[in-house]
Amino acid sequence: MSAGATVSLARELRGIVGEDGVLTGAATAPYETDATASRGLRGVPDAVVVPSSAEEVAELVAFACARGVALVPRGGGTGLAGGAVPVEGGVVVSLERLGGVHELTPEAWRLSVGAGVTTATVRRLARENGLFFPPDPGAAEQSHIGGNVATNAGGPHAFKYGNTGTWVTGIEAVVPPGEVVRVGGDQRKDVGGYDIKSLLVGSEGTLGIITAVTLRLLPAPEALLPIVAFFADAESGCAAVAEVIANGIEAAALDFLDGPSLEVVRGAYPEAVPDDAGFVLISEVDGPAEEAARQAAELQACVAETAIRTDTPVPAEVWRWRDGVSGAMSGARGGKVSEDIFVPLPRLADAIRGVHEIGAELDLPTGTWGHAGDGNLHASFLIDPSDPAQLDRANGAADRLFTLAIDLGGGVTGEHGIGWVKRGQLARQWTEGAIVLHEQIKRSFDPANVLNPGKKVARL
Amino acid sequence: MSAGATVSLARELRGIVGEDGVLTGAATAPYETDATASRGLRGVPDAVVVPSSAEEVAELVAFACARGVALVPRGGGTGLAGGAVPVEGGVVVSLERLGGVHELTPEAWRLSVGAGVTTATVRRLARENGLFFPPDPGAAEQSHIGGNVATNAGGPHAFKYGNTGTWVTGIEAVVPPGEVVRVGGDQRKDVGGYDIKSLLVGSEGTLGIITAVTLRLLPAPEALLPIVAFFADAESGCAAVAEVIANGIEAAALDFLDGPSLEVVRGAYPEAVPDDAGFVLISEVDGPAEEAARQAAELQACVAETAIRTDTPVPAEVWRWRDGVSGAMSGARGGKVSEDIFVPLPRLADAIRGVHEIGAELDLPTGTWGHAGDGNLHASFLIDPSDPAQLDRANGAADRLFTLAIDLGGGVTGEHGIGWVKRGQLARQWTEGAIVLHEQIKRSFDPANVLNPGKKVARL
Repeated sequence: MSAGATVSLARELRGIVGEDGVLTGAATAPYETDATASRGLRGVPDAVVVPSSAEEVAELVAFACARGVALVPRGGGTGLAGGAVPVEGGVVVSLERLGGVHELTPEAWRLSVGAGVTTATVRRLARENGLFFPPDPGAAEQSHIGGNVATNAGGPHAFKYGNTGTWVTGIEAVVPPGEVVRVGGDQRKDVGGYDIKSLLVGSEGTLGIITAVTLRLLPAPEALLPIVAFFADAESGCAAVAEVIANGIEAAALDFLDGPSLEVVRGAYPEAVPDDAGFVLISEVDGPAEEAARQAAELQACVAETAIRTDTPVPAEVWRWRDGVSGAMSGARGGKVSEDIFVPLPRLADAIRGVHEIGAELDLPTGTWGHAGDGNLHASFLIDPSDPAQLDRANGAADRLFTLAIDLGGGVTGEHGIGWVKRGQLARQWTEGAIVLHEQIKRSFDPANVLNPGKKVARL
Repeated sequence: MSAGATVSLARELRGIVGEDGVLTGAATAPYETDATASRGLRGVPDAVVVPSSAEEVAELVAFACARGVALVPRGGGTGLAGGAVPVEGGVVVSLERLGGVHELTPEAWRLSVGAGVTTATVRRLARENGLFFPPDPGAAEQSHIGGNVATNAGGPHAFKYGNTGTWVTGIEAVVPPGEVVRVGGDQRKDVGGYDIKSLLVGSEGTLGIITAVTLRLLPAPEALLPIVAFFADAESGCAAVAEVIANGIEAAALDFLDGPSLEVVRGAYPEAVPDDAGFVLISEVDGPAEEAARQAAELQACVAETAIRTDTPVPAEVWRWRDGVSGAMSGARGGKVSEDIFVPLPRLADAIRGVHEIGAELDLPTGTWGHAGDGNLHASFLIDPSDPAQLDRANGAADRLFTLAIDLGGGVTGEHGIGWVKRGQLARQWTEGAIVLHEQIKRSFDPANVLNPGKKVARL
């Protein structure tokens, strides 16, 4: 966009969101990328707007539709698929000012908040009222609930509790040609209309811009008992995971780190890690204290058969240690290309081995961790981001990773979304008929293709 | 349709589903209505086809699209909204032959079955493998899992476990212009494409014809402890429900019968019902034996404050007693018009009172029961079906019932669907913007409007 056009666009946007609702110059720099920065994804927005209400968002969408201007909705900027990055320009719509708590009714286990409230705030509000918001994607202090819903974010406890969408009972969103719609609410049951709520969940800003959500909460479990088990290798660790599930133990989380990932965070574990450990399983059971203790003992007995060592009770801070893995992996060489593929559980060990083989062939260090119970891997290739050749090789590795996941009967994204970095990959995973439906839905909601164009596309 | 046209249509359909796949003459009579028969809903199909595979269903849909022939998909015929009734004719597509068990993997808590498998069979297969399929809509021996998914059927245990859709991880369906699509599968996590699976759930045969489903199961709870509590009136009973939830007790079910409903089934309860009981709460807690016993005691203490009497332990057969309510209400005068409205929990007692007021004004006996914890009422007006004036008044009462539900902040259907009998009602509940999306989705999937036309329409 030319300098003159940019000035003119900013003037028109100020007419909608006010003088302080449009960012320009250096103030727009933080909106050029998200958590994909370390792999080099970046774009220069034509403008950044910070609306203060759903009505302002509706006016922005109406303006965009009338003028064919691309909008790039943005939450906390912690996305790992580049969904909020203005790769091809456009107007970034940051929802950060929609940060209000609209209604909290602890006695009905319900919370309604603006899209810009952080995940950590949602979890804190629940906790302060004896309740519990189960989804726990990473970067909770920075990520927004609106972004979590728009990407259907996961996390370790999705094994028992499902991704974010499971906990959404109502959505307020702006859809083309510029209308605020509300679907669902705080009721627990409603089968009247098509499930537009679920369609907006995980739509990554391509069907509507989520401005507020109503969430279902649960009574807080009395006890959370993490259990850490070390194994010699991925095969024995994955066999233990299958054993836990086959025994009907309802773990709240069944996370893992493979050998190379464990090496990177070995020193930060509260105790000495066994020398010969090549896989660690970080599990948790929750519930009433006695029952949780009984289940923890069952789980421990189940994994002890093949584990080198099991640690329980371990401090709850083990989850902070686990949360640090992604950052530590990035830090190991300065950057990483990491994808969140999933495979059927019986193929988990094959997937982990496959990642190492790809890394070895392309001469890139790897590390894989994630949500073993869900068959959901964060497969990473570590790079020095100042070396373009490494980044190229890592992007090639990611492509081979998607092939691996699909060959094993899985798919390209378990919790991060398609965004920009996985655009077109769905064509490898879905059949033609399903892809046509995907594309019809997009055209039906956003015929002018102004909502996050180029993102979440099924085929190129 | 003329007799000649009918014969010609049947001939063409035989070309798709074979000689024995087309029913004619008296054999089509059972397909003229469903559980709405007692309120007089009925239609004569132009033909009834019984395909034997998803591929045959695809050929039928292709034929229907090419020729503008309406298809009326049908499961077990237990629907309460007339979704499977060929009110305006058309070809009924009965999925009864898609009754195969495709895959059962108890160790992964998964089951894949054809759409025509009965709900009871699904529950039995789970149970025989130490697992548990939570949804429990009525008429499980007759209803099909495909129909349960297509209507997103509920039931008492939806309070803890959600409607049927919660347990669906994959769907195989035929969509226009005649393609078999598969969305989801047995993976636990997949955020790649738009949530087409959830869109098909509850779409009542208007977006696609569901031919197979993959279901998530749970380890069977060790103990199921029903607790029955009698109250003097709806106000004290509803207050007890609110108290249970506010105390963070995770009941599996919180069902109720109001006074008039209780009268109808009073004699069938295993013990003497207190003379002054005007409301009964049928609750259940489940889980590991010790923990369930603790929760049952908590729940009992919670309701005992206002109850006339609480019965625990009660035999599990209490659910059979509860299941008999709908039939007994129909039998009281020969027929009933019953709707499954929902209201916010704090308005439940107001809704029950409102139903009685409508019945009194229109001179119709009423009875209301249902899922108290979900604010989901089966509000019924009892009629002698041989008296057209009573049926007229009852249909007028249902219309006032929808107004009542919406005025109280609720909606027209919590678990039965819109079908034919509630067509157009969504326009009273949803805002214009959401209705436009609903209609866009239908046009996008079924531009020729051949899939169950006239059903689930948001406005007339």
